[in-house]
Amino acid sequence: MINYEQFYSANAAGMKKSIIRELLKLTGKPGIISFAGGLPAPDMFPVQEITEIVSDLMAREGEKILQYGPTEGYTPLREELLQYMKRQGVELSIDQLVVITSSQQGLDLVGKIFVNRGDVIMMSKPTYVGAIQAFNSYSAHMCGIEIEDDGIDTGMLEREIKKFIAENRKPKFIYLVPDFQNPSGITVSLEKRKELIRIAEKYDLLIVEDSPYKQLRFEGEHEPSFISLNSERVVSLYTFSKILLPGFRLGWMVGPESLVQKAVIAKQAVDLCAPPFNQAVFAEFMKKGLLEKQVAKIITAYREKRDFMLAKLDRYMPDLEGLKWTRPQGGLFLWLTLPGHMDTTEMFTDALEKNVAYVIGSAFDPEGKERNTMRLNFSFASKEQIDQGIKRLAEVIKNR
Amino acid sequence: MINYEQFYSANAAGMKKSIIRELLKLTGKPGIISFAGGLPAPDMFPVQEITEIVSDLMAREGEKILQYGPTEGYTPLREELLQYMKRQGVELSIDQLVVITSSQQGLDLVGKIFVNRGDVIMMSKPTYVGAIQAFNSYSAHMCGIEIEDDGIDTGMLEREIKKFIAENRKPKFIYLVPDFQNPSGITVSLEKRKELIRIAEKYDLLIVEDSPYKQLRFEGEHEPSFISLNSERVVSLYTFSKILLPGFRLGWMVGPESLVQKAVIAKQAVDLCAPPFNQAVFAEFMKKGLLEKQVAKIITAYREKRDFMLAKLDRYMPDLEGLKWTRPQGGLFLWLTLPGHMDTTEMFTDALEKNVAYVIGSAFDPEGKERNTMRLNFSFASKEQIDQGIKRLAEVIKNR
Repeated sequence: MINYEQFYSANAAGMKKSIIRELLKLTGKPGIISFAGGLPAPDMFPVQEITEIVSDLMAREGEKILQYGPTEGYTPLREELLQYMKRQGVELSIDQLVVITSSQQGLDLVGKIFVNRGDVIMMSKPTYVGAIQAFNSYSAHMCGIEIEDDGIDTGMLEREIKKFIAENRKPKFIYLVPDFQNPSGITVSLEKRKELIRIAEKYDLLIVEDSPYKQLRFEGEHEPSFISLNSERVVSLYTFSKILLPGFRLGWMVGPESLVQKAVIAKQAVDLCAPPFNQAVFAEFMKKGLLEKQVAKIITAYREKRDFMLAKLDRYMPDLEGLKWTRPQGGLFLWLTLPGHMDTTEMFTDALEKNVAYVIGSAFDPEGKERNTMRLNFSFASKEQIDQGIKRLAEVIKNR
Repeated sequence: MINYEQFYSANAAGMKKSIIRELLKLTGKPGIISFAGGLPAPDMFPVQEITEIVSDLMAREGEKILQYGPTEGYTPLREELLQYMKRQGVELSIDQLVVITSSQQGLDLVGKIFVNRGDVIMMSKPTYVGAIQAFNSYSAHMCGIEIEDDGIDTGMLEREIKKFIAENRKPKFIYLVPDFQNPSGITVSLEKRKELIRIAEKYDLLIVEDSPYKQLRFEGEHEPSFISLNSERVVSLYTFSKILLPGFRLGWMVGPESLVQKAVIAKQAVDLCAPPFNQAVFAEFMKKGLLEKQVAKIITAYREKRDFMLAKLDRYMPDLEGLKWTRPQGGLFLWLTLPGHMDTTEMFTDALEKNVAYVIGSAFDPEGKERNTMRLNFSFASKEQIDQGIKRLAEVIKNR
C-alpha cells in the first residue's frame, strides 16, 4: 500500500469535497424538485443561433479557430468585450482585459497571484461557495463580515481590517459579489459602494468584484460597478454563464493593467488559453448584437419566476417568528432565514423525503457555522415545480 | 501611485514572462518561416466532420450540452476515453479518469496537489517549457538531469535522488515526456522505462507521465506507457491538441483513484468543469470511430514532413564538428545541437534577419543554461517553407 497522503501539498491536504456538491448528488433522484443548483434556464439557450454561427464560422475560418490562440484571448472577442464594458460606463484599454476559462478560473487566478498561506481576505458572510473553495485552495484566512439589507456591514468590516493591521496582517483584498449576491440576492447600495472604496483607499487594499449577475436586473436602477468607481484598486470578474450559457466556460477579467498582465502570465501556466473556438463563436454572437437581446429575454423570464416564487412563499409559508426571505431585484437566488432554533442541515433529510431540495446556508459561510438559512434558486425550475416545491418546503418547515 | 508588488503572492513574484512567448511574438512578422511554434498542421483539422457533429448534437441535445456539467467530465466522453485507453492496454475504472481543460491544466493540477514551495521535482534536461512554467508557478525546485539518446540518464537521476534524500528533501515525483519528447524528439527505451519504475518504487516516488505525442509514432513499435507498467505510482496526462485539434482545449488525466479524485476536488475550485459542449463534440467524434482515422492521417502527413526536414538538414547543413540533430520516430519536434562555442540566443537575431525562426534551447532548461541548442518544429510549415527555412538556417549557422 502506498501512502499517497505524503505526496500532497499543504494546500491540497486542506481541500475537502464540497458539501454542496455531495448534497447536489442527492438531489438528482427522479421526482425531486430542486431549488439547489445555480443553473440557468436551459430553454433560454439560443441553440439555433449558436448552431448557425458555428456553421458559418467553421466554413469561413475553421482552421484558425481550431488552432491554439493567444493567452490574453481571441482578439475579436476582447474588442467586443471592450465595447460592451464601455456601454456600461467602463472605459478600458485592451491590455486591461483577459478572457478567462470561466469566472471560477478568475477566482483561482486571483488566489494564485495574491494569496500566500494564511493571507487575510475580507468578504461578506454568506458568500459565493466557489470563492470559498478557490481561496481555500491557497489556504487563505477568510474573514466573513455580516451582510445587511444594503450589503456588507462596512462598520464591522473597517473594525476588523484595523485589527488585522494592528496584528501586522494587512488583508490583501475585499471580495464582493455586489449585485444580487449569490447566495443572498442582496445588492450593495451606492452609499456602501462609496464607503467600501473609501476603506480600500484608506487601508491600501484591493477590491475583487465578482459580477456574474449584474446584467440581470429586473427593476430599479443599475448601481455603478466598483471598477467604474475606482480603476486603480479593483479587479472585476465577469462570466457568460448567466447572461448567455455556461457550457462554453468563458468569462473575462478586467482591472489595472499590471494586475491583469500578471494574471495573463499566471494563466499561461494554467491552460495556455481559453478555447479559441468558443471565443470566436461568442465574439460573433456579440457582433450580431444578439447578447443584449438574449439578456433582455432572460430578464423577462427570470423576473416572472422570481415574482412567482415570492408569491408562493407569501402564500404557503407558515407565520413563524423569525422566518423571512429576501426580495432580490435581479439574479438567480433568494435567501431564506428560519427561526434561530431551526437547522437547515438537519431539515435537509426531511426535505428530500418530501422530494424538494435547497442548499444549506453553511455552504456559503467561510467558517461553516450558518445553521438556519438556505439558498433557493428560482431560475431553473418551471412554474409548476416552483408551486409544488415551495408548498412542500413549507410543509417541511411546519413539521419541524 | 499604488504599489501593486506588495499584493503579489510569493509564487506570483517569481512568475516571469515566458522568453519563448516573447520570441514567438517576433516570429509573427510577414514573410518569416517559423519552426518555432508547437502548432499542429491546421489543414489536418477535420473542419467538416466537426461542423456536422455540432449541428447534429445541437439539434438532439443542445440544451444539455450548453449547461454546466460534472467536474469529472461529460460521462459519454469519459466512457469513450476508457475504451480508448483499453485499446492501448491500459484498463481503468471510471473514477481513475478526469477530463481536463487542456493537458497544461493537468500540469497545473499536478503542481497544485503535490508541490509546496521548494519541493524537489526530478525531470530531464531539456524538458517541456510549459511544465517548467507550471511547476515554477508553485515555486518547485526543479532538478534537470541530462537526456541521452534513449532517454533520461537514469544513473545520474538515481544519484541525485539519493543526494536529495540524504538532505531530507525527498523528491515528490519524476516528470517525463517519454515519447518523442518536446523538445528533443527522444523516446525513452523499454529498458530505461523499467529502470525508472524501479527507481520510483525503490525511493517511494511518483512518476508524472506527460503524453501528448505517444499516438503520433511514424515507425517502429510503441513502447509501453508508464501507467501500463505501474498503476500505483503513475499519473498520466493526455491531450486532444496534437491528435485532433487544440482549439477545444481538452485533455484527460488518469492515475490511481485517490490521486485522480484529489485532482477532481482541486479542479472544481479551478474552473468547475471543462466545457461540456466541447466534450460532447469530441465524444461523438470518438463514437463515430473518427479519432483513429484522424491519427492515421496526421501520422502520414507528419512522417512525410519529418523525412523532408531531415533530408533538407542533411543537404544544407555545413559539416561542422559537434553539429548534430535528433531523428525522432514520431511527434512534432527535432532538436539541433550546434558546436559548443555557438549560442542560439545570440544567433536568433541573425535568423530573424534571414526570416527564419526556431526556439532557443535555454527555454527548455529548468535552469535556463542551455546555449548551443534549438528546437525545430516540422508539423506546421509547408514543404516549400521547410526547404527554404532550413536553407536559410544553414546559412545563418555558416555565417557565425
